[in-house]
Amino acid sequence: MAHINLQNDYPGIRGPMAFSPQTAKPLNELAEVLLRSDNTLSRGERELIATYVSSLNDCFFCQHVHGFLAQHYLQCNTDFINEVKKDIVSSAISEKMKALLSIAASVQQAGKKVTIQQIEVAKELGATDKELHDTVLIAAAFCMFNRYVDGLATWAPEDKNYYIERAKQRAEEGYAGYDADK
Amino acid sequence: MAHINLQNDYPGIRGPMAFSPQTAKPLNELAEVLLRSDNTLSRGERELIATYVSSLNDCFFCQHVHGFLAQHYLQCNTDFINEVKKDIVSSAISEKMKALLSIAASVQQAGKKVTIQQIEVAKELGATDKELHDTVLIAAAFCMFNRYVDGLATWAPEDKNYYIERAKQRAEEGYAGYDADK
Repeated sequence: MAHINLQNDYPGIRGPMAFSPQTAKPLNELAEVLLRSDNTLSRGERELIATYVSSLNDCFFCQHVHGFLAQHYLQCNTDFINEVKKDIVSSAISEKMKALLSIAASVQQAGKKVTIQQIEVAKELGATDKELHDTVLIAAAFCMFNRYVDGLATWAPEDKNYYIERAKQRAEEGYAGYDADK
Repeated sequence: MAHINLQNDYPGIRGPMAFSPQTAKPLNELAEVLLRSDNTLSRGERELIATYVSSLNDCFFCQHVHGFLAQHYLQCNTDFINEVKKDIVSSAISEKMKALLSIAASVQQAGKKVTIQQIEVAKELGATDKELHDTVLIAAAFCMFNRYVDGLATWAPEDKNYYIERAKQRAEEGYAGYDADK
Protein backbone atom coordinates (compact mmCIF):
# COMPACT_ATOMS: atom_id res chain seq x y z
CA MET A 1 0.00 0.00 0.00
CA ALA A 2 1.31 3.41 -0.91
CA HIS A 3 2.49 5.69 1.92
CA ILE A 4 -0.25 8.22 1.13
CA ASN A 5 -3.82 7.95 -0.16
CA LEU A 6 -3.25 8.47 -3.88
CA GLN A 7 -7.00 8.36 -4.55
CA ASN A 8 -6.41 5.78 -7.29
CA ASP A 9 -5.11 2.23 -7.68
CA TYR A 10 -2.74 2.79 -10.60
CA PRO A 11 0.66 1.10 -10.36
CA GLY A 12 4.08 2.76 -10.28
CA ILE A 13 4.47 6.38 -11.27
CA ARG A 14 0.90 6.47 -12.64
CA GLY A 15 -0.42 6.64 -9.05
CA PRO A 16 1.37 9.84 -7.94
CA MET A 17 1.05 11.33 -11.45
CA ALA A 18 -2.75 10.99 -11.33
CA PHE A 19 -2.67 12.32 -7.74
CA SER A 20 -0.63 15.36 -8.81
CA PRO A 21 -1.21 16.28 -12.48
CA GLN A 22 0.41 19.69 -11.95
CA THR A 23 3.81 18.07 -11.34
CA ALA A 24 3.14 15.20 -13.79
CA LYS A 25 3.08 17.67 -16.70
CA PRO A 26 6.71 18.90 -16.55
CA LEU A 27 7.89 15.41 -15.54
CA ASN A 28 6.40 13.93 -18.70
CA GLU A 29 7.64 16.81 -20.84
CA LEU A 30 11.13 16.15 -19.51
CA ALA A 31 10.83 12.43 -20.35
CA GLU A 32 9.58 13.30 -23.85
CA VAL A 33 12.53 15.60 -24.63
CA LEU A 34 15.14 13.35 -23.03
CA LEU A 35 13.98 9.98 -24.31
CA ARG A 36 12.19 10.67 -27.59
CA SER A 37 13.24 13.94 -29.27
CA ASP A 38 15.67 13.95 -32.19
CA ASN A 39 19.04 12.73 -31.01
CA THR A 40 22.12 10.90 -32.27
CA LEU A 41 21.47 8.43 -29.44
CA SER A 42 18.55 6.26 -30.56
CA ARG A 43 15.38 5.98 -28.51
CA GLY A 44 16.39 2.42 -27.66
CA GLU A 45 19.83 3.52 -26.43
CA ARG A 46 18.29 6.25 -24.26
CA GLU A 47 15.70 3.85 -22.81
CA LEU A 48 18.59 1.47 -22.08
CA ILE A 49 20.35 4.16 -20.03
CA ALA A 50 17.07 4.76 -18.16
CA THR A 51 16.66 1.01 -17.60
CA TYR A 52 20.21 0.55 -16.36
CA VAL A 53 19.98 3.40 -13.84
CA SER A 54 16.55 2.17 -12.66
CA SER A 55 18.07 -1.27 -12.16
CA LEU A 56 20.96 0.19 -10.13
CA ASN A 57 18.36 2.06 -8.06
CA ASP A 58 16.45 -1.23 -7.64
CA CYS A 59 13.21 0.31 -8.91
CA PHE A 60 11.11 -2.62 -10.13
CA PHE A 61 8.44 -0.59 -11.93
CA CYS A 62 10.80 1.76 -13.83
CA GLN A 63 13.35 -0.88 -14.83
CA HIS A 64 10.56 -2.97 -16.36
CA VAL A 65 8.62 -0.14 -18.03
CA HIS A 66 11.80 1.22 -19.61
CA GLY A 67 13.42 -2.20 -20.08
CA PHE A 68 10.53 -3.33 -22.26
CA LEU A 69 10.57 0.00 -24.07
CA ALA A 70 14.30 -0.46 -24.78
CA GLN A 71 13.55 -4.01 -25.94
CA HIS A 72 10.75 -2.71 -28.18
CA TYR A 73 12.94 -0.09 -29.86
CA LEU A 74 16.13 -2.21 -30.05
CA GLN A 75 14.19 -5.25 -31.28
CA CYS A 76 16.06 -7.45 -28.83
CA ASN A 77 14.97 -10.01 -26.25
CA THR A 78 14.80 -9.78 -22.47
CA ASP A 79 18.03 -11.74 -22.06
CA PHE A 80 19.91 -8.95 -23.81
CA ILE A 81 18.47 -6.33 -21.43
CA ASN A 82 19.26 -8.53 -18.43
CA GLU A 83 22.85 -8.98 -19.62
CA VAL A 84 23.31 -5.21 -19.77
CA LYS A 85 21.86 -4.85 -16.26
CA LYS A 86 24.16 -7.61 -15.00
CA ASP A 87 27.44 -6.53 -16.57
CA ILE A 88 27.82 -3.81 -19.17
CA VAL A 89 31.43 -4.76 -19.96
CA SER A 90 30.63 -8.28 -21.17
CA SER A 91 27.30 -7.33 -22.78
CA ALA A 92 26.85 -7.11 -26.55
CA ILE A 93 26.54 -3.31 -26.77
CA SER A 94 28.86 -0.90 -28.55
CA GLU A 95 32.00 0.34 -26.82
CA LYS A 96 30.55 3.87 -26.87
CA MET A 97 27.39 2.69 -25.13
CA LYS A 98 29.52 0.89 -22.54
CA ALA A 99 31.36 4.16 -21.87
CA LEU A 100 28.08 6.10 -21.59
CA LEU A 101 26.50 3.50 -19.28
CA SER A 102 29.60 3.61 -17.11
CA ILE A 103 29.10 7.38 -16.76
CA ALA A 104 25.40 6.82 -15.99
CA ALA A 105 26.41 4.36 -13.25
CA SER A 106 28.67 7.00 -11.70
CA VAL A 107 25.89 9.60 -11.82
CA GLN A 108 23.60 7.08 -10.08
CA GLN A 109 26.05 7.02 -7.15
CA ALA A 110 26.68 10.79 -7.04
CA GLY A 111 27.37 13.59 -9.51
CA LYS A 112 30.98 13.94 -8.37
CA LYS A 113 31.68 10.26 -9.08
CA VAL A 114 31.93 11.01 -12.80
CA THR A 115 35.65 11.17 -13.62
CA ILE A 116 37.56 13.06 -16.31
CA GLN A 117 38.89 9.66 -17.44
CA GLN A 118 35.38 8.31 -18.02
CA ILE A 119 34.53 11.39 -20.08
CA GLU A 120 37.76 11.14 -22.09
CA VAL A 121 37.18 7.47 -22.88
CA ALA A 122 33.64 8.21 -24.06
CA LYS A 123 34.86 11.12 -26.23
CA GLU A 124 37.58 8.94 -27.78
CA LEU A 125 34.87 6.44 -28.67
CA GLY A 126 32.94 9.16 -30.47
CA ALA A 127 30.55 10.47 -27.79
CA THR A 128 29.57 14.09 -28.50
CA ASP A 129 29.06 16.80 -25.89
CA LYS A 130 25.30 16.56 -26.39
CA GLU A 131 25.37 12.78 -25.93
CA LEU A 132 27.39 13.20 -22.73
CA HIS A 133 25.03 15.92 -21.51
CA ASP A 134 21.98 13.79 -22.24
CA THR A 135 23.49 10.69 -20.63
CA VAL A 136 24.18 12.61 -17.41
CA LEU A 137 20.70 14.16 -17.39
CA ILE A 138 18.88 10.88 -18.21
CA ALA A 139 20.78 9.17 -15.37
CA ALA A 140 20.05 12.08 -13.01
CA ALA A 141 16.37 12.19 -14.03
CA PHE A 142 15.93 8.48 -13.28
CA CYS A 143 17.49 9.03 -9.86
CA MET A 144 14.44 11.30 -9.43
CA PHE A 145 11.78 9.12 -11.09
CA ASN A 146 12.94 6.00 -9.21
CA ARG A 147 12.86 7.82 -5.86
CA TYR A 148 9.42 9.26 -6.63
CA VAL A 149 8.04 5.78 -7.38
CA ASP A 150 9.64 3.98 -4.41
CA GLY A 151 9.69 6.88 -1.93
CA LEU A 152 5.88 6.80 -1.96
CA ALA A 153 5.83 2.97 -1.86
CA THR A 154 3.73 2.57 -5.01
CA TRP A 155 2.90 -0.97 -6.13
CA ALA A 156 4.11 -2.64 -9.33
CA PRO A 157 2.53 -5.47 -11.38
CA GLU A 158 4.61 -8.65 -11.39
CA ASP A 159 3.22 -9.88 -14.74
CA LYS A 160 5.64 -8.91 -17.52
CA ASN A 161 2.76 -8.70 -20.00
CA TYR A 162 1.66 -5.50 -18.28
CA TYR A 163 4.99 -3.89 -19.20
CA ILE A 164 5.02 -5.30 -22.73
CA GLU A 165 1.61 -3.73 -23.41
CA ARG A 166 2.59 -0.42 -21.76
CA ALA A 167 5.79 -0.31 -23.82
CA LYS A 168 3.86 -0.57 -27.10
CA GLN A 169 1.45 2.14 -25.97
CA ARG A 170 4.20 4.46 -24.77
CA ALA A 171 6.22 3.95 -27.98
CA GLU A 172 3.15 4.96 -30.00
CA GLU A 173 1.90 7.82 -27.85
CA GLY A 174 5.06 9.20 -26.27
CA TYR A 175 5.26 10.81 -22.85
CA ALA A 176 4.22 14.42 -23.47
CA GLY A 177 0.48 13.87 -23.68
CA TYR A 178 0.66 11.18 -21.02
CA ASP A 179 -2.60 10.62 -19.18
CA ALA A 180 -2.03 8.60 -16.01
CA ASP A 181 -5.70 7.57 -16.11
CA LYS A 182 -5.17 5.58 -19.32
CA MET B 1 36.35 23.10 -16.03
CA ALA B 2 33.13 21.39 -17.01
CA HIS B 3 33.33 17.88 -18.50
CA ILE B 4 31.87 19.11 -21.80
CA ASN B 5 32.12 22.37 -23.75
CA LEU B 6 28.98 24.14 -22.53
CA GLN B 7 29.61 27.06 -24.92
CA ASN B 8 29.19 29.49 -22.01
CA ASP B 9 30.87 30.37 -18.71
CA TYR B 10 27.79 30.44 -16.49
CA PRO B 11 28.12 28.79 -13.08
CA GLY B 12 26.17 25.83 -11.74
CA ILE B 13 22.99 24.69 -13.44
CA ARG B 14 22.94 27.82 -15.62
CA GLY B 15 25.74 26.33 -17.76
CA PRO B 16 23.94 23.15 -18.88
CA MET B 17 20.58 24.95 -18.97
CA ALA B 18 21.93 27.48 -21.48
CA PHE B 19 23.59 24.61 -23.38
CA SER B 20 20.29 22.68 -23.53
CA PRO B 21 17.25 25.01 -23.39
CA GLN B 22 14.96 22.21 -24.57
CA THR B 23 15.51 20.27 -21.32
CA ALA B 24 15.83 23.45 -19.22
CA LYS B 25 12.18 24.32 -19.92
CA PRO B 26 10.50 21.34 -18.18
CA LEU B 27 13.16 21.39 -15.44
CA ASN B 28 12.29 24.99 -14.60
CA GLU B 29 8.56 24.33 -14.87
CA LEU B 30 8.97 21.48 -12.39
CA ALA B 31 10.87 23.77 -9.99
CA GLU B 32 8.18 26.44 -10.34
CA VAL B 33 5.31 24.07 -9.47
CA LEU B 34 7.20 22.29 -6.69
CA LEU B 35 8.80 25.25 -4.98
CA ARG B 36 6.55 28.22 -5.68
CA SER B 37 2.92 27.24 -6.49
CA ASP B 38 0.17 27.51 -3.85
CA ASN B 39 0.89 25.08 -1.06
CA THR B 40 0.35 24.64 2.68
CA LEU B 41 4.14 24.30 2.89
CA SER B 42 5.55 27.80 2.56
CA ARG B 43 8.05 28.68 -0.15
CA GLY B 44 10.68 28.98 2.56
CA GLU B 45 9.92 25.50 3.92
CA ARG B 46 10.10 23.98 0.44
CA GLU B 47 13.39 25.74 -0.33
CA LEU B 48 14.67 24.41 3.01
CA ILE B 49 13.89 20.83 1.91
CA ALA B 50 15.72 21.53 -1.38
CA THR B 51 18.67 23.00 0.54
CA TYR B 52 18.87 20.10 2.97
CA VAL B 53 18.87 17.46 0.22
CA SER B 54 21.44 19.47 -1.79
CA SER B 55 23.61 19.60 1.31
CA LEU B 56 23.32 15.82 1.81
CA ASN B 57 24.29 15.41 -1.87
CA ASP B 58 27.24 17.76 -1.27
CA CYS B 59 26.22 20.04 -4.15
CA PHE B 60 27.83 23.40 -3.39
CA PHE B 61 25.96 25.42 -6.02
CA CYS B 62 22.44 24.11 -5.25
CA GLN B 63 22.76 24.20 -1.48
CA HIS B 64 23.80 27.85 -1.64
CA VAL B 65 21.30 28.99 -4.29
CA HIS B 66 18.43 27.36 -2.41
CA GLY B 67 19.88 28.03 1.05
CA PHE B 68 19.87 31.77 0.39
CA LEU B 69 16.39 31.50 -1.14
CA ALA B 70 15.18 29.71 2.03
CA GLN B 71 16.87 32.41 4.09
CA HIS B 72 15.20 35.13 1.99
CA TYR B 73 11.71 33.66 2.40
CA LEU B 74 12.08 32.59 6.05
CA GLN B 75 13.72 35.90 6.99
CA CYS B 76 16.38 34.06 8.96
CA ASN B 77 20.18 34.19 9.02
CA THR B 78 22.75 31.80 7.56
CA ASP B 79 23.43 30.28 11.00
CA PHE B 80 19.85 29.00 11.08
CA ILE B 81 20.23 27.33 7.67
CA ASN B 82 23.58 25.84 8.70
CA GLU B 83 22.05 24.44 11.91
CA VAL B 84 19.37 22.65 9.89
CA LYS B 85 22.01 21.23 7.55
CA LYS B 86 24.08 20.08 10.54
CA ASP B 87 21.36 18.49 12.66
CA ILE B 88 17.65 18.76 11.99
CA VAL B 89 16.71 17.32 15.40
CA SER B 90 18.35 20.08 17.44
CA SER B 91 17.51 22.87 14.98
CA ALA B 92 14.81 25.47 15.68
CA ILE B 93 12.28 24.21 13.13
CA SER B 94 8.81 22.80 13.80
CA GLU B 95 8.37 19.15 14.70
CA LYS B 96 6.42 18.66 11.45
CA MET B 97 9.30 20.10 9.40
CA LYS B 98 11.74 17.83 11.26
CA ALA B 99 9.58 14.84 10.27
CA LEU B 100 9.41 15.98 6.64
CA LEU B 101 13.17 16.64 6.46
CA SER B 102 13.80 13.18 7.92
CA ILE B 103 11.72 11.72 5.06
CA ALA B 104 13.64 13.88 2.56
CA ALA B 105 16.91 12.51 3.99
CA SER B 106 15.68 8.94 3.43
CA VAL B 107 14.66 9.75 -0.16
CA GLN B 108 18.16 11.17 -0.70
CA GLN B 109 19.60 7.75 0.15
CA ALA B 110 17.04 5.70 -1.83
CA GLY B 111 13.28 5.65 -2.35
CA LYS B 112 12.88 2.45 -0.37
CA LYS B 113 14.60 3.97 2.68
CA VAL B 114 11.39 5.86 3.53
CA THR B 115 9.67 3.90 6.32
CA ILE B 116 6.02 3.56 7.32
CA GLN B 117 7.07 4.83 10.76
CA GLN B 118 8.51 8.06 9.30
CA ILE B 119 5.28 8.61 7.38
CA GLU B 120 3.12 7.90 10.45
CA VAL B 121 5.11 10.31 12.62
CA ALA B 122 4.75 13.05 10.00
CA LYS B 123 1.01 12.42 9.68
CA GLU B 124 0.57 12.55 13.47
CA LEU B 125 2.31 15.92 13.43
CA GLY B 126 -0.21 17.19 10.89
CA ALA B 127 1.48 16.50 7.53
CA THR B 128 -1.09 16.07 4.76
CA ASP B 129 -0.88 13.61 1.87
CA LYS B 130 -0.05 16.48 -0.47
CA GLU B 131 2.73 17.71 1.83
CA LEU B 132 4.17 14.19 2.00
CA HIS B 133 3.91 13.81 -1.79
CA ASP B 134 5.61 17.15 -2.35
CA THR B 135 8.36 16.44 0.18
CA VAL B 136 9.21 13.14 -1.55
CA LEU B 137 9.16 14.76 -5.00
CA ILE B 138 11.20 17.81 -3.97
CA ALA B 139 13.81 15.50 -2.41
CA ALA B 140 13.79 13.26 -5.50
CA ALA B 141 14.00 16.26 -7.85
CA PHE B 142 17.05 17.63 -6.06
CA CYS B 143 18.70 14.21 -6.36
CA MET B 144 18.37 14.96 -10.08
CA PHE B 145 19.34 18.66 -10.08
CA ASN B 146 22.38 18.02 -7.85
CA ARG B 147 23.59 15.18 -10.10
CA TYR B 148 23.04 17.31 -13.21
CA VAL B 149 25.17 20.13 -11.75
CA ASP B 150 27.99 17.95 -10.39
CA GLY B 151 27.85 15.14 -12.97
CA LEU B 152 28.92 17.69 -15.60
CA ALA B 153 31.51 19.24 -13.24
CA THR B 154 30.11 22.77 -13.49
CA TRP B 155 31.86 25.50 -11.49
CA ALA B 156 30.34 27.45 -8.57
CA PRO B 157 31.16 30.94 -7.27
CA GLU B 158 32.66 30.94 -3.77
CA ASP B 159 31.47 34.46 -2.96
CA LYS B 160 28.20 34.25 -1.00
CA ASN B 161 27.10 37.62 -2.39
CA TYR B 162 26.53 35.92 -5.74
CA TYR B 163 23.92 33.65 -4.13
CA ILE B 164 22.33 36.47 -2.12
CA GLU B 165 21.75 38.46 -5.31
CA ARG B 166 20.50 35.41 -7.24
CA ALA B 167 18.10 34.57 -4.40
CA LYS B 168 16.48 38.03 -4.60
CA GLN B 169 16.17 37.74 -8.37
CA ARG B 170 14.74 34.20 -8.26
CA ALA B 171 12.25 35.14 -5.52
CA GLU B 172 11.01 38.02 -7.70
CA GLU B 173 11.02 36.27 -11.08
CA GLY B 174 10.37 32.63 -10.20
CA TYR B 175 11.70 29.66 -12.14
CA ALA B 176 9.19 29.23 -14.96
CA GLY B 177 10.43 32.04 -17.21
CA TYR B 178 14.03 31.36 -16.19
CA ASP B 179 16.57 32.54 -18.71
CA ALA B 180 19.98 31.00 -18.02
CA ASP B 181 21.58 33.89 -19.92
CA LYS B 182 20.45 36.43 -17.29
